[in-house]
Amino acid sequence: MSAPNLVFRRAVAPDLAAIVELLADDPLGRERETGGADLDPLYREAFGAIEQDPNQLLAVAERDGRVVGVLQLSFIPGLTRRGMWRGQIEGVRVAASERREGLGRAFIEWAIGHSRERGCGLVQLTSDKRRPAAHRFYEALGFEATHQGYKLTL
Amino acid sequence: MSAPNLVFRRAVAPDLAAIVELLADDPLGRERETGGADLDPLYREAFGAIEQDPNQLLAVAERDGRVVGVLQLSFIPGLTRRGMWRGQIEGVRVAASERREGLGRAFIEWAIGHSRERGCGLVQLTSDKRRPAAHRFYEALGFEATHQGYKLTL
Repeated sequence: MSAPNLVFRRAVAPDLAAIVELLADDPLGRERETGGADLDPLYREAFGAIEQDPNQLLAVAERDGRVVGVLQLSFIPGLTRRGMWRGQIEGVRVAASERREGLGRAFIEWAIGHSRERGCGLVQLTSDKRRPAAHRFYEALGFEATHQGYKLTL
Repeated sequence: MSAPNLVFRRAVAPDLAAIVELLADDPLGRERETGGADLDPLYREAFGAIEQDPNQLLAVAERDGRVVGVLQLSFIPGLTRRGMWRGQIEGVRVAASERREGLGRAFIEWAIGHSRERGCGLVQLTSDKRRPAAHRFYEALGFEATHQGYKLTL
């Protein structure tokens, strides 16, 4: 995205409260996250684990100094498909005020570009079946819904 | 699985050729892998990357000294769901001779147990929509197909 007031960058610790607010400000996230002024220490712990892992990249979109988007990119080595690395996108959220402005598209394209730079041959993600608008969004970006995404809660 | 001649364990370098054979002996894998006597060096490189990453576990099922199953387990830290770790299963293959014997089920349960030990709150995987038998298998194990799995080839 060429708008000079918009940047995509690696998240740093001071972004954490704003990131959790974004995760909680979502129809599905509302049930799962604990936002608010007192940050749940579990988020700090998770942030530390992500930061220490060279195959994880937590990224934010920042406009005019405000965090307006977040996503996590995981680089996963694997044997299948002749030892191909995968980029995996998880936890994508864009502030309600920024939707339909192309920010989401530019942010995912940025993540795809990063995956390419890291030598990945594939980018993958799963999207909850209750998010039809997200499905149209990813399909417009060229993603194909070739797989069923299974979850088992422990 | 209590059969004394069956073990599930971390893969080591001498297993690699047998693993690649398993990956290639599959209707979808056949198009994507290069098996045979001369191991493609890309597999060795990928094996090294997996071995060096403490959040990756490549596992084999071994019966009577023979590799009869493989799967990869990735431990992924994340902020969503209150900083929950995920166990992700990828690249599951079981030798044709071992199917319908409960080995697959025991192997996945072993992977779930490992994920629990590592503090994961969720186990996730995707399965190609062309594998209906695999879908029944995962559903019988308690997995729910809550997500669409998207891929973008780079």
